Amino acid sequence: MSQPSLPTTDRTRLRRKAERGRHDRETVAAILDAGLICHVGFGVEGRPWVFPTTYARVGEVVYLHGAVGNFALRTLAGGAEVCVTVTLIDGLVLVRSAFHHSMNYRSVMLFGVAQPVIDESEKREALLAIVDHMAPGRRADSRSPTPEELVSTLVVRLPITEGSAKVRTGPPIDDAGDMGLSHWAGVLPLRLVPGTPVPDPGRPGTASSVGPAASSGAGGSVGPTQPAPLPTPSYLTDWATLRAADAT
Amino acid sequence: MSQPSLPTTDRTRLRRKAERGRHDRETVAAILDAGLICHVGFGVEGRPWVFPTTYARVGEVVYLHGAVGNFALRTLAGGAEVCVTVTLIDGLVLVRSAFHHSMNYRSVMLFGVAQPVIDESEKREALLAIVDHMAPGRRADSRSPTPEELVSTLVVRLPITEGSAKVRTGPPIDDAGDMGLSHWAGVLPLRLVPGTPVPDPGRPGTASSVGPAASSGAGGSVGPTQPAPLPTPSYLTDWATLRAADAT
Repeated sequence: MSQPSLPTTDRTRLRRKAERGRHDRETVAAILDAGLICHVGFGVEGRPWVFPTTYARVGEVVYLHGAVGNFALRTLAGGAEVCVTVTLIDGLVLVRSAFHHSMNYRSVMLFGVAQPVIDESEKREALLAIVDHMAPGRRADSRSPTPEELVSTLVVRLPITEGSAKVRTGPPIDDAGDMGLSHWAGVLPLRLVPGTPVPDPGRPGTASSVGPAASSGAGGSVGPTQPAPLPTPSYLTDWATLRAADAT
Repeated sequence: MSQPSLPTTDRTRLRRKAERGRHDRETVAAILDAGLICHVGFGVEGRPWVFPTTYARVGEVVYLHGAVGNFALRTLAGGAEVCVTVTLIDGLVLVRSAFHHSMNYRSVMLFGVAQPVIDESEKREALLAIVDHMAPGRRADSRSPTPEELVSTLVVRLPITEGSAKVRTGPPIDDAGDMGLSHWAGVLPLRLVPGTPVPDPGRPGTASSVGPAASSGAGGSVGPTQPAPLPTPSYLTDWATLRAADAT
């Protein structure tokens, strides 16, 4: 890719452990795409707030959303400075000395001011991008927002213009004098892993509410008006693979 | 437990989805104990910063640490207002309408001003608590900080006096009119899962660097001065169970 790196500013120059820093847009984008939630920080009357929320990256923009009455989103839409941080935990780094313990991680910090999205089609695309960011392929298997739903939703756009990534990988780094100690040292890898999808019990005729017999239509109390249970979509069974592919 | 709940303040009164709010100290403590990292927010000259870091809860206090030169820790130690947020992702909530998509999660926001820890024994205990928070049992299997290491570390203490938790659990909630749509709906559970521990390849004689033959001492080039590989500690093989037990 030929895009220039993000510029180094007072806020994105890494002050410590500079060897962990990355400013290239590809690394920043890959971490944003791999994360599921971000932590959004802003100040009100000099006091900081940090709240977790879903998001999506589309090109050189990150979209956040909430209800029109949402305090945080309203503050952002009103022009507050914001810091958006995404962190992925990759493992515990267990070092012989307590002092040098660490984690393997990937993180991104973005800075700037977000703008409210007014255009209805951009707003719809942003919401569908957020749904698709959770589970790639889901936007095509859900009902699109109505005009009323769009009116009741506040979407803001943060351009990716100032920010940096930080990445730690690899084994523990011990002081030379500690290498002979009889403490286990190494990495415990960690990964966010999907379990078995749990169908909505609220749907009449789902496998979880009436049992597998319903799908065969073989007897029982389930009449012909009950919809058949839906098979688990492939974008859920392949979730981890699809998201990993999206993030590269 | 008989402890009073955290008081509701301007910052901890839930403005939206109040049914997800929790103010009891047990819920707040359990979420803090279950998390691995927090996101720490503060402002400098009116501009917000949010950085991820490890932490530990000890009683009614959360400890954070960093190098004495660490910009964020120095800002906190200097008396800046801080917001510390811990978020655990429990699952994706896939609703028939894109609009109502959500996540199952547990989160805590704490507000206040942190104080630097001066007392050497409290500082040591805080650092060992942070190590043990990563992997319960690890403090007993690592070298304790030296006086020099303590001097080079900044530890701050945030009392748990103002804050709240927010929890979403359960199935999707659709608009009644959407229940007949042929979109799969339900929850994809997500969990941070440990992989196989990877021993430090830097240790002479570890299984990963010289192979299993080294542990039997049977021939090969590994002499008697090479330490035998250490077995994987039980606090790593039982990591998920031990951390879950700590958080309840």
